[in-house]
Amino acid sequence: MKKNPFKIIPGAPKPLRLEVERRVRFEEVDALGIVWHGRYPSYLEDIREALGDHYGIGYLDFFREGLITPIRQLHIDYHQPLQLHEKLTIQGELHWSEAARLNFTYQIFNAQNELTTSGHSVQMILDYQNRNVLMVPPPFFQTFLERWRQNGNPEEIHE
Amino acid sequence: MKKNPFKIIPGAPKPLRLEVERRVRFEEVDALGIVWHGRYPSYLEDIREALGDHYGIGYLDFFREGLITPIRQLHIDYHQPLQLHEKLTIQGELHWSEAARLNFTYQIFNAQNELTTSGHSVQMILDYQNRNVLMVPPPFFQTFLERWRQNGNPEEIHE
Amino acid sequence: MKKNPFKIIPGAPKPLRLEVERRVRFEEVDALGIVWHGRYPSYLEDIREALGDHYGIGYLDFFREGLITPIRQLHIDYHQPLQLHEKLTIQGELHWSEAARLNFTYQIFNAQNELTTSGHSVQMILDYQNRNVLMVPPPFFQTFLERWRQNGNPEEIHE
Amino acid sequence: MKKNPFKIIPGAPKPLRLEVERRVRFEEVDALGIVWHGRYPSYLEDIREALGDHYGIGYLDFFREGLITPIRQLHIDYHQPLQLHEKLTIQGELHWSEAARLNFTYQIFNAQNELTTSGHSVQMILDYQNRNVLMVPPPFFQTFLERWRQNGNPEEIHE
Repeated sequence: MKKNPFKIIPGAPKPLRLEVERRVRFEEVDALGIVWHGRYPSYLEDIREALGDHYGIGYLDFFREGLITPIRQLHIDYHQPLQLHEKLTIQGELHWSEAARLNFTYQIFNAQNELTTSGHSVQMILDYQNRNVLMVPPPFFQTFLERWRQNGNPEEIHE
Repeated sequence: MKKNPFKIIPGAPKPLRLEVERRVRFEEVDALGIVWHGRYPSYLEDIREALGDHYGIGYLDFFREGLITPIRQLHIDYHQPLQLHEKLTIQGELHWSEAARLNFTYQIFNAQNELTTSGHSVQMILDYQNRNVLMVPPPFFQTFLERWRQNGNPEEIHE
Repeated sequence: MKKNPFKIIPGAPKPLRLEVERRVRFEEVDALGIVWHGRYPSYLEDIREALGDHYGIGYLDFFREGLITPIRQLHIDYHQPLQLHEKLTIQGELHWSEAARLNFTYQIFNAQNELTTSGHSVQMILDYQNRNVLMVPPPFFQTFLERWRQNGNPEEIHE
Repeated sequence: MKKNPFKIIPGAPKPLRLEVERRVRFEEVDALGIVWHGRYPSYLEDIREALGDHYGIGYLDFFREGLITPIRQLHIDYHQPLQLHEKLTIQGELHWSEAARLNFTYQIFNAQNELTTSGHSVQMILDYQNRNVLMVPPPFFQTFLERWRQNGNPEEIHE
């Protein structure tokens, strides 16, 4: 069920992976007692935000550079429902790309460690002022990419 | 059950009243099959927006003048639940005030015309730039108030 | 940009199409002044619900038969943002399938009739009690399919 | 600004207090870059849920007894806005009552420990089957109340 929808780049460094835990909240559940499908974009944003904070490439980091990173594509496969008050683990992976974009894949697991949901998203990097799509990654992101390639882990960028 | 929480000003023109109809949407309902209490601010915003559009005092009208109107107080009494797919009528009344504020009361009725919900809100008028509270209503709103006082109905302001 | 992600079935009747209009609400817009990507599932549910009501195949029609129709796949492509207070037209098409599933495609247009968003969803038909996936469409839905095939339009089912 | 809207019962044990921390999420912020007023019911539910889990009086504890606890009144005063990505502390207090109801007061503080929001809610205890309001607290809740009165802290109920 897990597959990478993005083109594999030969010699690319491994994806950066992070996890967050969360519990299904009362308001997220529908009349059937399961999480309404339309709440999952919020779950995916959680891990994207955590990963962005962790590696110094969050939306506030982009914004400080006059850039925004709107979602251009979102895809979600719902394998199993999540119930009221259930614990879930949201796993996100940022995939290597040399274009000015952010390619994420997602997996959500329930407390029994079963895969309940998977998906991916594509974000473009845009100039905030005139909303033009950048053709190449901006300098601060280039630095991040270089460290990622060299170390397989750009974490020190963050500190 | 209906009461006006705002100070009655002697000689004040009658409140401006408007209604909108809406149907309970699938995503608004909780695990008990009734509208989750936290969705009602959205219902109240609906009638506030409709009334603002109708009388030319919507948030975009304020924004054009460099002003915003954040909510300072919100109060909701839940008398009866609303069910999945149920039709509801949201009634809003804007109450006369000579201060730089917007005082609304609300009533929601179900298809049997029973009162299900009532409430009120208070909004201040603020300068967008420095977020200062205005002491007196801004000129465009003064004009609106004058027409309201003269005609008991400021509708012609709108077009 | 518009494409049908579903397998074309030779001789299948044309999709059933419906449109609803909506205005971007204040609460749907993010810090950038555009509709947050995670609000779109709600827009798509709007047209799905309208089409279900129109043709007598809404979630309450299924539920009366002891059936539910959870989303199994959701895909959204964001071509252009939608702004605060902007009018939008949500168009949905239900595609012919002889399996126990509902295949929808979506297109959203702004007031200038530009395509802002497209997508698709897949729903399975499940037994409510034991959450088993149905192998063939249930009787009431078979009747709907027969009319659709015969008339190219199953609308009379609704009355 | 902090006041208890509930009738003081002479000799009543002190309120039970708990806090949760949270960060303003991207989707919670409106076009003005501040948390939309309608998201706060979700913040208040967070602390109510945490306190319910902590003391064994959460909605699932009630539900196991065939009971539900819908909100009958919600009141929120917005003193200061909360910004994108800001840390907040949500504090909730459950006030002593011998009736079949849950009376909560709330305070939200920003990272500078300034009070940004206060409010209260009233919940009735209802029989799930026929939705009748209970006249006296149900047995499991009586036990909770006895421990609260005896120890000033019913925490051991939870274990």
